[in-house]
Amino acid sequence: MTINRRFLLTARPDGTPQASDFTLADAPVPAIGPDEILIRNHYASLDPAIRGWLDDVPSYLPPVELGDAVRATTVGVVEASNAEGFAPGDWVMGLNKIEHYSVAKLGGFTSRIDADIVPSVTNYLSVMGAVGLTAWFGVTEILKPKAGETFLISGAAGAVGSMAGQLGKLAGARVVGIAGGPAKCKRLIDDYGFDAAIDYRGKDVEALTQAIGEACPDGIDLVFENVGGIGLDATLTHINPYARIGLCGLISEYNGEAYGTRNLWQLIARMATIRGFLISEFLDRFAEGGMAMAKLVAEGKLRFDEHIDEGIDNAYPAFLRLFEGSNQGKMILKLV
Amino acid sequence: MTINRRFLLTARPDGTPQASDFTLADAPVPAIGPDEILIRNHYASLDPAIRGWLDDVPSYLPPVELGDAVRATTVGVVEASNAEGFAPGDWVMGLNKIEHYSVAKLGGFTSRIDADIVPSVTNYLSVMGAVGLTAWFGVTEILKPKAGETFLISGAAGAVGSMAGQLGKLAGARVVGIAGGPAKCKRLIDDYGFDAAIDYRGKDVEALTQAIGEACPDGIDLVFENVGGIGLDATLTHINPYARIGLCGLISEYNGEAYGTRNLWQLIARMATIRGFLISEFLDRFAEGGMAMAKLVAEGKLRFDEHIDEGIDNAYPAFLRLFEGSNQGKMILKLV
Repeated sequence: MTINRRFLLTARPDGTPQASDFTLADAPVPAIGPDEILIRNHYASLDPAIRGWLDDVPSYLPPVELGDAVRATTVGVVEASNAEGFAPGDWVMGLNKIEHYSVAKLGGFTSRIDADIVPSVTNYLSVMGAVGLTAWFGVTEILKPKAGETFLISGAAGAVGSMAGQLGKLAGARVVGIAGGPAKCKRLIDDYGFDAAIDYRGKDVEALTQAIGEACPDGIDLVFENVGGIGLDATLTHINPYARIGLCGLISEYNGEAYGTRNLWQLIARMATIRGFLISEFLDRFAEGGMAMAKLVAEGKLRFDEHIDEGIDNAYPAFLRLFEGSNQGKMILKLV
Repeated sequence: MTINRRFLLTARPDGTPQASDFTLADAPVPAIGPDEILIRNHYASLDPAIRGWLDDVPSYLPPVELGDAVRATTVGVVEASNAEGFAPGDWVMGLNKIEHYSVAKLGGFTSRIDADIVPSVTNYLSVMGAVGLTAWFGVTEILKPKAGETFLISGAAGAVGSMAGQLGKLAGARVVGIAGGPAKCKRLIDDYGFDAAIDYRGKDVEALTQAIGEACPDGIDLVFENVGGIGLDATLTHINPYARIGLCGLISEYNGEAYGTRNLWQLIARMATIRGFLISEFLDRFAEGGMAMAKLVAEGKLRFDEHIDEGIDNAYPAFLRLFEGSNQGKMILKLV
C-alpha cells in the first residue's frame, strides 16, 4: 500500500520554530469523497507566512491544528478525481499541506495549471505564484512607483523583494534594497539591478538609520516592507511627505515578541501612509498578474531564483532557512 | 514702558515637561521691521503638538530654540503694522508664541479674522481653529465615514476627539470613544452623542482589547487615533478588512520613550491602512472647513467646549493639563 508521509505540527512554536515542534508521520493515502480530488504533491512553497499559521491566533486563515500537516501552497498532479473539471494527470496548484498526498475540494483554492508553458512547473510557486503575484500587485497596485521616486525595499534579496525591486526599476524608480550580508547586497546590484544596497547585519537602529540616510539622500517616497523591526523604524526617519509604505510582511517579528514600532509619529509629520496588503485581495486578477510576470520573464526583463531543497524529511531545515536567511531565491521543497 | 512677558523654554524636557524646563521672563516689547506686524496676543492655544516642538528633533516645524518663547497658535489684536492688509485694531490669528506681544511677518501663517461673526473670539482656537479643522478634515477627507460603519475614536473626550465623534455621528456611523475615567465617558454619551464609551483607566492591553471587542461587536471600520500606545495595539486586534486608521496624534508617547506598536501585523491580515495627517495639507481649504464647522455650531448640530485658564503665569500648569487629561474642552490660555 502507498503511504502518505506528512510533516505534522505537533507543538506550537515559542519563537523560532524548533525541530521538536514537528513530526514526520506516515499515514494511509486518504480516500476522496464527492467533489474532491486526490493530489500527489510534487513541490511545496515554503513561505514566511506559514510561521503565522502555526500560532493559535485568529488571522486571515485559521491556525494549523496540532497534529495536522503544515499548510502550504503546493503544485502537484491529480491522482484521482470526483470533481468536475479535474482529471487524473492534470497539474494543479492550491493551498494544501506539506505531505505527499493532499485532498482538495471543489470550490477551494485549487486550480489547474499548464505545465507546458513554463520552463519549470516550480515557476508557479515563484515568479507566477504567490511571491511573484505579491511583488506584482504590491508594486503595481499598492505602491505604483513613478519615474524618479526613491523606492526602498526591505528583505530585498528575498523572493518577493528581489522581484519587487526589479518591477520598481522597470517603472523608472531609484531602487534601494536592504539585505543581510555583503553577498546578498552584491546580488542586489549585480543580479537584480538595484541602484544601492544596505547591509543591515551588525547595525543597530542608529547605524541603520544613518546607512539608509546615506543611500537615500533625497529621502524615501515608497517602501516595500517585508521585515519590520528596527529597519522599519530606521526607514520611517527618512520618509518624504506623502510617502507610501506597502506593508507586505514583518518577518523579523514573527518568531518572538514583536519589536514594537516606535517611529509611527513620522507618519503624522510626513502625512504618510502604511497600507497592509494580502494578495488574496487580488484573487480575481491572479491570471492577469501571473501572465504579466511570465511575459517579463520571457522578455528577459525579470530575473528570479528558486532555492529547491529535496525531500519531505528536509521540510524543517528548509523552512528554517527563511528565518536564517540562508536561502537564495524562492524557497521550495521538492516532494517527489 | 510696556513690557512683554514671555513663557520661555529654557531646558529640553525629558519625558513629561517639568516647571523647571520653562522660565517666565520680561522683555521690552519688540520693534517691528518692514512687512512686519506687532500683535498683542489675547489667547494662546495649548495643543499636544507643542510637546513635539520642545524636543531637539527635526520635524515638520523646527524645534523651539532654548531661550525662546514656546510656539503656539494665538489670537490677538494688531498693535502696530508695517504690513499691507493689516491695520492696528485688526483681530488676527497665527502661529506665534506664548508671550504678550508677538511679531509676525507678512507671508507667514498670520491671517485676519472676523471677531464679530463668532460668539467668542476663542472659537478661532477651538471649533474654527486647528482642532476644529483637524476634526473636520480628518473625518471628512481622511476617513470619510459611511452610514453603519463602526468608528472608534481615542482621546475621544478631547477637543479634537469630541468633535470628530460628532462628525462621525452626523455621517451616520456608529461612534465609539475611548477616554479616561467615568466622568469623561459619561460626557461622551450625554454631551457628544457617542454610541458607546470605553474607560481606558486601569486597563492593561489585554483588558483594553477585551473592552474594545465588547464595545465593537462588529469590528472596527474606521479609527481616529489621537493617543497611540496600548490603546492602538488593542484597537488593531479588532479592525475589519480594509479598515482605515487616521493617525492624528500619539499623545501617550510624546513624554517618554515611545511604547512601540506591536500589532502592525494586523494591518497585513486585514489589508488595512494607517494614514498620518496634518491639517497643513489642507491649508488652502481652511476657510471652507472653518465655515462648515461654524455652520454646524450655528445649526445646533455640533457641541464644543473650551477650557480657558487665565494668565501667562499659569502657562505651565495649563499646558500640563493636556497630559494629565484634566482639561474639559479645548485648552486655551487667556493672556489679556
